[in-house]
Amino acid sequence: MLVRRTASALLRTSTEIFSCPVSPVPFVRRSLNGLQKPRSFSTSVCLCKKKKQQSLWLQQAEEGRNMDGNMEEILAPLRLAVKEQGDLVRTLKQEGAPDVDVTKAVAELKARKRALEAKELSLQPKDDIVDRAKMEDTLKRRFVYDQAFAIYGGVSGLYDFGPVGCALKNNVLQAWRQHFIQEEQILEIDCTMLTPESVLKTSGHVDKFADYMVKDVKNGECFRADHLLKAHLQKLMSDKKCAAEKKVEMENVITQMDNFTQQELTELFVKYDVKSPTTGNSLSPPMSFNLMFQTSIGPGGNMAGYLRPETAQGIFLNFKRLLEFNQGKLPFAAAQIGNSFRNEISPRSGLIRVREFTMAEIEHFVDPIEKVHPKFPNVADLDIMLYSSKAQTSGQSAQIMRLGDAVEQGIINNSVLGYFIGRIYLYLTKVGVAKDKLRFRQHMDNEMAHYACDCWDAEAKTSYGWIEIVGCADRSCYDLLCHARATKVPLVAEKPLKEPISVNVVQFEPNKGALGKTYKKDAKLVMEFLSICDERFITEQEKLLNETGEITVETEGKTFKLTKDMVSVKRQQKTLHVEEVVPNVIEPSFGIGRIMYTILEHTFHVREGDEQRTYFSFPASVSPYKCSILPLSVNPEFIPFVKDLSEAMTKNGVSHKVDDSSGSIGRRYARTDEVGVSFGITIDFDTVNKTPHTATLRDRDSMRQIRAEITELPDIVRDLANGTIAWAEAEGKYPIFEGQETGKLNVEE
Amino acid sequence: MLVRRTASALLRTSTEIFSCPVSPVPFVRRSLNGLQKPRSFSTSVCLCKKKKQQSLWLQQAEEGRNMDGNMEEILAPLRLAVKEQGDLVRTLKQEGAPDVDVTKAVAELKARKRALEAKELSLQPKDDIVDRAKMEDTLKRRFVYDQAFAIYGGVSGLYDFGPVGCALKNNVLQAWRQHFIQEEQILEIDCTMLTPESVLKTSGHVDKFADYMVKDVKNGECFRADHLLKAHLQKLMSDKKCAAEKKVEMENVITQMDNFTQQELTELFVKYDVKSPTTGNSLSPPMSFNLMFQTSIGPGGNMAGYLRPETAQGIFLNFKRLLEFNQGKLPFAAAQIGNSFRNEISPRSGLIRVREFTMAEIEHFVDPIEKVHPKFPNVADLDIMLYSSKAQTSGQSAQIMRLGDAVEQGIINNSVLGYFIGRIYLYLTKVGVAKDKLRFRQHMDNEMAHYACDCWDAEAKTSYGWIEIVGCADRSCYDLLCHARATKVPLVAEKPLKEPISVNVVQFEPNKGALGKTYKKDAKLVMEFLSICDERFITEQEKLLNETGEITVETEGKTFKLTKDMVSVKRQQKTLHVEEVVPNVIEPSFGIGRIMYTILEHTFHVREGDEQRTYFSFPASVSPYKCSILPLSVNPEFIPFVKDLSEAMTKNGVSHKVDDSSGSIGRRYARTDEVGVSFGITIDFDTVNKTPHTATLRDRDSMRQIRAEITELPDIVRDLANGTIAWAEAEGKYPIFEGQETGKLNVEE
Repeated sequence: MLVRRTASALLRTSTEIFSCPVSPVPFVRRSLNGLQKPRSFSTSVCLCKKKKQQSLWLQQAEEGRNMDGNMEEILAPLRLAVKEQGDLVRTLKQEGAPDVDVTKAVAELKARKRALEAKELSLQPKDDIVDRAKMEDTLKRRFVYDQAFAIYGGVSGLYDFGPVGCALKNNVLQAWRQHFIQEEQILEIDCTMLTPESVLKTSGHVDKFADYMVKDVKNGECFRADHLLKAHLQKLMSDKKCAAEKKVEMENVITQMDNFTQQELTELFVKYDVKSPTTGNSLSPPMSFNLMFQTSIGPGGNMAGYLRPETAQGIFLNFKRLLEFNQGKLPFAAAQIGNSFRNEISPRSGLIRVREFTMAEIEHFVDPIEKVHPKFPNVADLDIMLYSSKAQTSGQSAQIMRLGDAVEQGIINNSVLGYFIGRIYLYLTKVGVAKDKLRFRQHMDNEMAHYACDCWDAEAKTSYGWIEIVGCADRSCYDLLCHARATKVPLVAEKPLKEPISVNVVQFEPNKGALGKTYKKDAKLVMEFLSICDERFITEQEKLLNETGEITVETEGKTFKLTKDMVSVKRQQKTLHVEEVVPNVIEPSFGIGRIMYTILEHTFHVREGDEQRTYFSFPASVSPYKCSILPLSVNPEFIPFVKDLSEAMTKNGVSHKVDDSSGSIGRRYARTDEVGVSFGITIDFDTVNKTPHTATLRDRDSMRQIRAEITELPDIVRDLANGTIAWAEAEGKYPIFEGQETGKLNVEE
Repeated sequence: MLVRRTASALLRTSTEIFSCPVSPVPFVRRSLNGLQKPRSFSTSVCLCKKKKQQSLWLQQAEEGRNMDGNMEEILAPLRLAVKEQGDLVRTLKQEGAPDVDVTKAVAELKARKRALEAKELSLQPKDDIVDRAKMEDTLKRRFVYDQAFAIYGGVSGLYDFGPVGCALKNNVLQAWRQHFIQEEQILEIDCTMLTPESVLKTSGHVDKFADYMVKDVKNGECFRADHLLKAHLQKLMSDKKCAAEKKVEMENVITQMDNFTQQELTELFVKYDVKSPTTGNSLSPPMSFNLMFQTSIGPGGNMAGYLRPETAQGIFLNFKRLLEFNQGKLPFAAAQIGNSFRNEISPRSGLIRVREFTMAEIEHFVDPIEKVHPKFPNVADLDIMLYSSKAQTSGQSAQIMRLGDAVEQGIINNSVLGYFIGRIYLYLTKVGVAKDKLRFRQHMDNEMAHYACDCWDAEAKTSYGWIEIVGCADRSCYDLLCHARATKVPLVAEKPLKEPISVNVVQFEPNKGALGKTYKKDAKLVMEFLSICDERFITEQEKLLNETGEITVETEGKTFKLTKDMVSVKRQQKTLHVEEVVPNVIEPSFGIGRIMYTILEHTFHVREGDEQRTYFSFPASVSPYKCSILPLSVNPEFIPFVKDLSEAMTKNGVSHKVDDSSGSIGRRYARTDEVGVSFGITIDFDTVNKTPHTATLRDRDSMRQIRAEITELPDIVRDLANGTIAWAEAEGKYPIFEGQETGKLNVEE
């Protein structure tokens, strides 16, 4: 049913330009769970009336800001511009206008949508956005993560996680396993990253997973074509002598950067005379550069392989084994956590765009005519910010909506997709993504792979703008069909028929004797292969067998010649009690690095009144260390208490950090706050001098302290860390700590 | 202190031939935490007196077996042969004999040692070794793990873990994190797998991490030279017409396979006229094949990169950041869990020798003069099977020894190494490695990298023979020194001096003004670089500066020319309060796949009296699922109880599997036993009909059952799973289950 499309349309892709509120420069991003969408829009690059019109509403909006008016007032002309263009696109489609006109109109629609979004973001209160430089200083100084291979000069797009970053990552993944694998009874698998070319040829990555780049003709330095062109135009525009009309023209090129074909890009590079920014040398025309890391598997040099660009393929390839593991029953879900690789031409934006990254992907296999999730009622009452395709093409904002209503009204295609959107929302907010900076944005028709029914991205608002952190697509039966066709292995499930039916069946009929004589032990392999071929393949082979007297089949890496005496084709009527279905698949796909980065931005705070003291308000469940243990000073009397408490914490499975260095207690609290340790215990003179021995327990966010018996503390911290009790409850149960009663000193922060 | 060795000696490597008791063919393996040792032995391949003598004691031993005598009696001549040769090696070394004679004698010693070990293994009771075919059938049928990309014909050396294998792996890693990261307060980090060439050039992998291979001259098919030669000789030997003397000669070649140089291998291929076994075509001479997967990082094609062959390098490269994270103090340990890659020429032995595998490595950094572990007393009383270097060269067996005694007697070099051996032992036996099939084998002098003080491998007895599953080496300061030299970044720690000392200091003296004028913002980079150069580098550069008037330095990927007006060299006296030390490193290195494979073999059992029923007796802590929940039949009355219990289990963090298929309860228990589910709960008619509602809980290993209230079961299973209570205790606390009292049927297994 999916065959009447061109190859370039058979892709898991989308590309989009997002605006960045900090620097006003839009940047291109690729969808997490997708390939690059082919740049097939035939948008012309010359100025046209529409573009002049665009500059007009941009100008109106600009004035709106200057007047310092109401935000919606400022946005109104931009919203209207989107809506008008959205209406135009719909009209053109309804009227069956030529493709070229539709794509032009769509490109313009996208451009207007982006302008609206950029403006919306720029009007947000500034204190809503993190001080990125300040945060990055902490991340680097405390080795949360940092550039890999720095002592060898570093490699861009590669990062190492230090102890804090690594613990955060482990906890984010652990929470993911608990939330999805355990609670949804998903089958987790672990496949290799090395992948032979044939697999990625089928998936479309070998042919289509590419960006355009240009090369310095003299020294070979490479640049990503769209980035370079944009930077070049921005430079030209910054020239005071640049005519206003020219500026508008170049602005338009930048806005539409994502839509250009290779030919159009080539013409633009010539038109604007773009040279290498580092040498001034001429550049090659834009050429396609595949983003997969290639290698060679085995010593022969004849098995090309790649590092996987996503983890999903491993699940599709193991579909049969997984179905069998699930005793042949649909629906079921499988998942994989692991690294993927993309050889970005010019990686940037820190953890957002890197060359090696961790993903977690779920493939939920479901009978296509039963896309109803029995547990959907559990999430139906969630209120979630949804940015529907319709809102986007009408110039409206994202809207908070009850998930149940969105499914009922058909905004979300089905309740399986709806269920996962709800579960993703619950997961993200549990691990520290701020609710008010999280939205689900629906792909527009023209963004979505043609075979997908519906696709929603979880997007987080960060200092880089809205970034996709999870994709959630209904991918229909596309992936299983592709691999089944390429391998001749049917990737189907059986389901019982209500009434048995009678059908014509075509099968290979092997001659066991003849096969055994020729292929000995391998005859079994051949027969296994013959038994699973589909009708189309059998019919093809039958023709060949009749014409040439033999056919050749390949299985488990071996090749077998089969002659007419070894195999024939049998046609018969059969009564069927089951039917075969190609399952549809709902695919939630998580970018773990992007989620971590979002958590870091959303939880980063500066203490009121002290610019120098920062902290991460991580939820305790993902906090890298649950607790610090601090002796009040280097007094040796404290040591045995610290040691015993640390051992008790370990026994209780509570990750913690002892800081017995000589800094003041306040300074040491500040140090542990800086890396987001949730709670802090101080051993002071009252601990030593009084029985029962007690110590103080401090909450990072409120900085309030209670005092409890030292033997109780491991349990209290464990319960606080896994959310069994809240800090407020602990305050109700134990005395608030005000100050020590005994000891030499009364040092507090 | 390490510079007076040749490059080829600067390696983290060892190679050794192990014997396989199932097929009597020895196979070559590479040390887990090491590179391939260069084949620099100049062993001659012609027959000599020693070899004839060897055949004599082999023959004696053979007769011993035929007489069915006492095992030690059979081994005595082999032990003696090893001892004699060991004595000879010692004498030669003491007398300062020529290197060529020593290496010849060592090769012979190794050969005798291998013959002894092969014989020892072959005399073991056969029921001690797992029925591998039976186990592998289970592993494949239940998708514990299986060949990757099977529907595309498969790729050898690449495996995918299914739900059971993946859960086992997660639990083995989780136990590792708890046992090492948490209990030892180790700093876990997470580095990239993609690694630029410069790093692996320094580590020696680019030049030395290789095997020899030969190529079919016509079709290009590749073979691992040693494997092919061995197979060829075995074929020749199996010919009845092969003369006895010829057989002995060829046996000797096989035994010494690991010691041949490239030249010697070439001669052997000519001598025995080895052809391609698949085509009969001629072969190329043996050539060195690097085992790393190569790729290219970035679009320019000019940054060669590799997939890391081990995880250790990432820790060394981050040493400075980690030391700072630890507030500058030694000792501390860092660790990494992650995948590594080796492009084996011909992978085999299932999970033992694969192309992509998970490792967990610890680097414990310690002051070289303070190699004492304060927690050693915690493990000193462990009795562990140790196979010391001395025992190996004296023909003795491995011996059970108190760890404390081994350190005291100097058999284990220091208590830090001893502590880790103890901790490794505790970990391995906790996750399911059998105590009586685990030994620690010390590297012999000639096996060990020259810079290492001591090195012990944890070896497990499997159907493949004794295989290394963990390496534990004292690597001295080698790795940090190498990277420091290559990058000019000092990788040192400071420690306070008891008395301040006065020293001559050589430093670069930058002229800030001149640098700033020329390099603007980058001047800071240059000055940072100049401030960290070591004396040797400064002296070199000073000479260059005086001779040519300028020097060139590289930092953070940029190159700077410095002239005399920008930089000079200053020499002065300074009073030092701290001294710099290059830390030594103790490196425990875990092969997770090999550990998993060992656990599978050591826990695989067949039920007494029923060959068809097999089970894995995984310790509950690593068991893939802690519990199954089985309704007695498909009766709908059971459904709400199953659902509630499953939810309660999830809430309690207990991984479990519901099997509500229609098979008999006995058959379903057998299915869950087969994948090692620890406990099973059955909901039966008593559950439904009686209050309080109870259900049965079954122990997989004993198949005994108790009956408890359904609300208590989640806690009971959780406590059993994490070892808080033992099954025997549960039996003491709850009534033993004999049979249902109510209901329609009384179905039990």
